[in-house]
Amino acid sequence: MVSMRTRSVFCAVLLLFAVSRDSLAQTDPLPSWNDTAPKQTILKFVAETTKEGSPSFVPPAERIATFDNDGTLWAEQPLYFQFLFGIDRIKALAPKHPDWKTTEPYKSVLEGHPEKALAQGDRAVLSIMMVSHAGMTTAEFDTTVRDWLETAKHPRFHRPFTDLAYQPMIELLAYMRANGFKTFIVSGGGVEFMRAFADKVYGIPPEQVVGSAGETKYEMRPDGPVLLKLPKVAFIDDGPGKAEGIQRMIGRRPVFAFGNSDGDKQMLEWTAAGSGARFMGLVHHTDAEREWAYDRKSSVGRLDKAWDEAVQRGWIVVDMKKDWNKVFAFEK
Amino acid sequence: MVSMRTRSVFCAVLLLFAVSRDSLAQTDPLPSWNDTAPKQTILKFVAETTKEGSPSFVPPAERIATFDNDGTLWAEQPLYFQFLFGIDRIKALAPKHPDWKTTEPYKSVLEGHPEKALAQGDRAVLSIMMVSHAGMTTAEFDTTVRDWLETAKHPRFHRPFTDLAYQPMIELLAYMRANGFKTFIVSGGGVEFMRAFADKVYGIPPEQVVGSAGETKYEMRPDGPVLLKLPKVAFIDDGPGKAEGIQRMIGRRPVFAFGNSDGDKQMLEWTAAGSGARFMGLVHHTDAEREWAYDRKSSVGRLDKAWDEAVQRGWIVVDMKKDWNKVFAFEK
Repeated sequence: MVSMRTRSVFCAVLLLFAVSRDSLAQTDPLPSWNDTAPKQTILKFVAETTKEGSPSFVPPAERIATFDNDGTLWAEQPLYFQFLFGIDRIKALAPKHPDWKTTEPYKSVLEGHPEKALAQGDRAVLSIMMVSHAGMTTAEFDTTVRDWLETAKHPRFHRPFTDLAYQPMIELLAYMRANGFKTFIVSGGGVEFMRAFADKVYGIPPEQVVGSAGETKYEMRPDGPVLLKLPKVAFIDDGPGKAEGIQRMIGRRPVFAFGNSDGDKQMLEWTAAGSGARFMGLVHHTDAEREWAYDRKSSVGRLDKAWDEAVQRGWIVVDMKKDWNKVFAFEK
Repeated sequence: MVSMRTRSVFCAVLLLFAVSRDSLAQTDPLPSWNDTAPKQTILKFVAETTKEGSPSFVPPAERIATFDNDGTLWAEQPLYFQFLFGIDRIKALAPKHPDWKTTEPYKSVLEGHPEKALAQGDRAVLSIMMVSHAGMTTAEFDTTVRDWLETAKHPRFHRPFTDLAYQPMIELLAYMRANGFKTFIVSGGGVEFMRAFADKVYGIPPEQVVGSAGETKYEMRPDGPVLLKLPKVAFIDDGPGKAEGIQRMIGRRPVFAFGNSDGDKQMLEWTAAGSGARFMGLVHHTDAEREWAYDRKSSVGRLDKAWDEAVQRGWIVVDMKKDWNKVFAFEK
């Protein structure tokens, strides 16, 4: 009599064989990427780091891949989407704050000139972000962001902002995960803002989103505890803050990192400084027709010093126009 | 002809059946727990939350389980182990700081009276922790902690501190993970201190450790970037800070939480406030013989207000003496 155990081992072997045949026959995992250097480098990196016995093999637990969000996973023009959310919140809250009509930077925002508010500098931007992101519970904020994402439209494409996620990067995230990589967002964006869509749009769960954060205050209310969002910055996850955020929240050095701007320089350097196989990539916005073209002089997502370093050190620079055959899923 | 796919589906069904028979026949997942209320409640909670179609079913992605560390996963007497590490560091660093011989709180530590240093209050404790935990890179600190854990011995048990992890909790962590729960540490301890052993001792990877943290500074040195640990607190993950830390680092409300002291009160309240099935547990130290007996009056791991709340709200309180048949793996 063949025991249950023997039968199950036999079947497991057959099953593995079937699965392995299926993988061999699988279609291109990165169909929106042209067959140029970036795609080839990614495929080679993943093949080598996941092959047991390869000198570049990375054990599954150490397969940490980090991605910037704005300009890397979704668009960031004409202004960071979270700032556009902040502006919409200022408009929505204005009736309760009559003084804003005459007080900068709110005045400019309410008069339809957010760029004038921006031009007033970091302090003005911070005021807008604080007022629009604090003074409510974390649960209320989450609902507000989700509502906005469902209703607000991008000014150029007239579509929900989440439609402006890059199709090639969505494919890349799925491909990395299929190969045992744990994908994280490491972004200057607000951690709670990003969590409202990261799971649905990118397949990245809340606990794998690292971002800037404000202070919160625990309050016991009659119907239970809440966390109140305070108008105080706790952590800025940008520039050197990205290496610090990776260390504090993830506690492991990534082996794979993708960014698009000078704010990602230190994340890429930190990734590059580990031993063994490494992948460092930058998205270069070169496609004014399908997306936008900007780099060294841009006030949003400036790519200058990180670009020089990438060229000098042989990091991958994706030329959006050349290397991606599709930018957004909605393109024909 | 039977296709490969049909055969593999057939085998998968057989295999599932075999696996399911194996699970039925499996041995007790919590052998160090007596068959009393806490164990029964845990088994029932896991059975109900993982059974599809059950009204208490929790989807795998939402199976977040958080555990305090000191006094919950490992011992915390006669003093928090990380404080004992700090004291050893003060002694090791003393030759470079001759002034410490005459300066409190270092003087008391160097004279072999850490309890006198402690009695000087929070400021003194903070000084000891800052001096012993800053002024080096994160990589150097990690090496220092690992070296200490390999060589230092617990004053009562004369064994490495990691031997003082609770065997019942190690079993519980493994059991939760085997049922699709993602296990996190959420502790007042330093995040980088805990990461040096959490993976090996508890099976909890670095990215699932939430703890108190100091500021770091990114520095580019000739041989690459480092993160320098600064003598400045960035975040205290204790009391209300535990709910805040869970929100900021995990971004989901746990469905299962275990603590042992008043510092865990808000974590348990935050967990309890979610909808659907919940488990809130406290370890009560009642076993002076095998471990320690302390609660309302203890300066380390005081259990007072959280205990009252647990009794009032029907949370599980583990009576170490009654409910655990083994505390440490090394017991005969």
